[in-house]
Amino acid sequence: MKLFAFAASASAFVANNVVEMDHHSKKLTTAANADKITTLPGLDNLPDFDMYSGYLSASETKKLHYWFVESQGNPATDPVVLWLNGGPGCSSMEGFFAEHGPLHLNDDETISMNPWAWNMNANMIYMEAPIGVGFSKGSADDMKIISDDTTSSDNRDALKDFFTKFPQYLANGLYVSGESYAGIYVPTLIAKIVDDDMLSAHFKGAAIGNGLYSWEKNQQSIIYFAKYHGLISTANWSSLVKNCCTNGDESKCDFFNYPNDSCKSDVETVVNLTWSGGLDVYNLYAECAGGISKQKTMDNILSKSNLNMSFTPRYDGPPCTDDNALETYFNTAAVKSALHVDPSIEWVLCAEDLNYQTTVQDVSQYIEHAMNTVPDSRIMLYAGDVDMACNFLGGEMFADALNLPLEEKYSEWTYIAEDKTKQVGGWYKKFHRLSWVTIKGAGHMVPTDKPIPAYDMFQAFLNGDL
Amino acid sequence: MKLFAFAASASAFVANNVVEMDHHSKKLTTAANADKITTLPGLDNLPDFDMYSGYLSASETKKLHYWFVESQGNPATDPVVLWLNGGPGCSSMEGFFAEHGPLHLNDDETISMNPWAWNMNANMIYMEAPIGVGFSKGSADDMKIISDDTTSSDNRDALKDFFTKFPQYLANGLYVSGESYAGIYVPTLIAKIVDDDMLSAHFKGAAIGNGLYSWEKNQQSIIYFAKYHGLISTANWSSLVKNCCTNGDESKCDFFNYPNDSCKSDVETVVNLTWSGGLDVYNLYAECAGGISKQKTMDNILSKSNLNMSFTPRYDGPPCTDDNALETYFNTAAVKSALHVDPSIEWVLCAEDLNYQTTVQDVSQYIEHAMNTVPDSRIMLYAGDVDMACNFLGGEMFADALNLPLEEKYSEWTYIAEDKTKQVGGWYKKFHRLSWVTIKGAGHMVPTDKPIPAYDMFQAFLNGDL
Repeated sequence: MKLFAFAASASAFVANNVVEMDHHSKKLTTAANADKITTLPGLDNLPDFDMYSGYLSASETKKLHYWFVESQGNPATDPVVLWLNGGPGCSSMEGFFAEHGPLHLNDDETISMNPWAWNMNANMIYMEAPIGVGFSKGSADDMKIISDDTTSSDNRDALKDFFTKFPQYLANGLYVSGESYAGIYVPTLIAKIVDDDMLSAHFKGAAIGNGLYSWEKNQQSIIYFAKYHGLISTANWSSLVKNCCTNGDESKCDFFNYPNDSCKSDVETVVNLTWSGGLDVYNLYAECAGGISKQKTMDNILSKSNLNMSFTPRYDGPPCTDDNALETYFNTAAVKSALHVDPSIEWVLCAEDLNYQTTVQDVSQYIEHAMNTVPDSRIMLYAGDVDMACNFLGGEMFADALNLPLEEKYSEWTYIAEDKTKQVGGWYKKFHRLSWVTIKGAGHMVPTDKPIPAYDMFQAFLNGDL
Repeated sequence: MKLFAFAASASAFVANNVVEMDHHSKKLTTAANADKITTLPGLDNLPDFDMYSGYLSASETKKLHYWFVESQGNPATDPVVLWLNGGPGCSSMEGFFAEHGPLHLNDDETISMNPWAWNMNANMIYMEAPIGVGFSKGSADDMKIISDDTTSSDNRDALKDFFTKFPQYLANGLYVSGESYAGIYVPTLIAKIVDDDMLSAHFKGAAIGNGLYSWEKNQQSIIYFAKYHGLISTANWSSLVKNCCTNGDESKCDFFNYPNDSCKSDVETVVNLTWSGGLDVYNLYAECAGGISKQKTMDNILSKSNLNMSFTPRYDGPPCTDDNALETYFNTAAVKSALHVDPSIEWVLCAEDLNYQTTVQDVSQYIEHAMNTVPDSRIMLYAGDVDMACNFLGGEMFADALNLPLEEKYSEWTYIAEDKTKQVGGWYKKFHRLSWVTIKGAGHMVPTDKPIPAYDMFQAFLNGDL
């Protein structure tokens, strides 16, 4: 796998490395120039910053779609930030068009500028990964095995291809970011980046939102979350404590490695409630897009995954998410053409038929390896605190368990709201080179729910304050 | 106290009981007719249902302002529901104009109709209680002692005066409702109603939202709420568990009767954070009106109240609440005239100088007395689940501790949202004649945050389904 990918990106380097000048007088490789977005349906005029869309090669057959948006600050010096949505199987175009991208897709397929875009001071790469997601593709053989390991290798190799297309950005420094299942994608990727001759010296750090860092801690914590957010009653809780906790001690419960079948049954009921109880698993306090009846029929991913780490989601979209506008937009021929992607692919927000093999149970060692290998790198783990898919309690448990020295104790952080008042954005604490941040009232898609706090937090991270 | 009040309402009965006909051909006492609202600033035309405002006498000197809105259904047969906001010291005009009243006051002093008003099928009395609150008043002597006991007696006597003014409504049946500190007002009032010859036979039940039912349970539970909503970190929690919990068992903590000074200090820090940490104590996920700096200067009521059960709030409004429109409106001469209230009174949302003596620690016995004395009466305890002032965890603890037989287990309930989709409104369980209901994502002022679910819940209560 590794050699194959290397060979591919080396050949891409030769083909791409013919320098051209674009209208901004930037030196561009031919390959970069070919990916430049020159028109975009839904927009009358392109924004002031340049955008590129096309494919990055992880091998001769593995092609990952990326949408690169230059910084609105100083693209020549601002860092490069890779963004990965999770799933596994979901497209990073959600991050672009509905979270922190500079353009937001409206329900009527028009596009609005996002004043809280993360590319204000960063060159952002939105990449659809792994193969089989969005416009990304591979051969039939490639598709047979997609795992945490192939994904991280492919992402690394695609990233190398990116810097072959855009060599001038390598020295700017590289951050890797993502959310949800990217709690696995990002750590496994940065662990490979820091071992890579091309990328390692330029690696600056990573930011992960509502990440799945540990299957165990994620499930362990959701039960407490459910209890203390009123999803289950005192009576249900008593049963859970009786069946799952040593001597009925609420602090000594095992909601993952079930001590008995009653515990297993109690836990599964709660996990099922968070995913299929008519609630929006991504934001407990949001209304469920489409309403309960649609969502009730969807599969419960996480409760199954504990029993069988390989799974095939059968739903036709994430629960309680309205993906109509995105799916209509990306399946328009003019859009596919503008983005230089394969017109034969039918784009969906989350791939239905990805045969994804989860192999990583906990990403501690990957984060530790990256931090140990690149001593100045920094990690920010953040969480919208009303998400149930990857709840903040489990995230904090994970951050604590890394046992890094605490440098700033848990405190509120603030932001200036649209009405110019000062507001509490959430809480944070800083370990040595790793910060833990919550965003109050945000769900799984933090910048969607709380764009200003999310923007401030991201800027603070890039500035080295978080 | 009791005799005095009786004498007053008896004399009021004689004076008022001259029957007149209004333009709806209703028989009205002279006193009722005098209170009829015939014009209202902010409204071009009065609504179709009749409204009355003026004073109810609890004694010759104690005058409680009420605003009575007839049902939009069938006022001749629909029940009468008294509504009381809490504080102590806050005006029920908030309930009227910002929660479930038929008219809502806009920021620009205009008035909008509320499609989710609770008077759709109920005759609603919004009463400002106790004396010293809003337009309600008493003599200087009366004001020296205002307590849970004088308040409940005065409210009962004012209610009797209401039915003297409006005798035709007594047979319709009487419910008492309220929120917050009305968790004490309502149970203490209904315990007196059921012992009253005039009212007892007509008493139907009570509904209380985010009530302060038990000082102990309210404080005990907020610590768990804070921990599991991310206000404090795992490290703070470890300290709390170490200092306050038997053998470090999280289910055996005493956060109220502190076992030691370290526990006291830890708990006070958390309670203080909920009231004065820059958060909106009434809705954790709302932005704080006016921003942090204003709110930070406000007093912490609840943390003090545990040390000293008598307190004088010194803030000039509830934390993070924008009371500007209400205070401007009610201090307009034309409004005071339209509402037949004392024009010399400067109206404030929450009284600053009320010397209120809290004497009741837990209202279980009052609820039990009412339920035992009027066998068909029903109680609904409801809670917005993101309120921190009177959090839902403490409410459920209180409901459970009444030890009533459980008739329906804890389940989700649903409502139809504005976009016609079916959504989870919250959770409920039914004990014999007492229901416990949460409203998902609502804060302390449930109908303000979630008008449709709140309306549906209230209708279900009146219909006997909750």
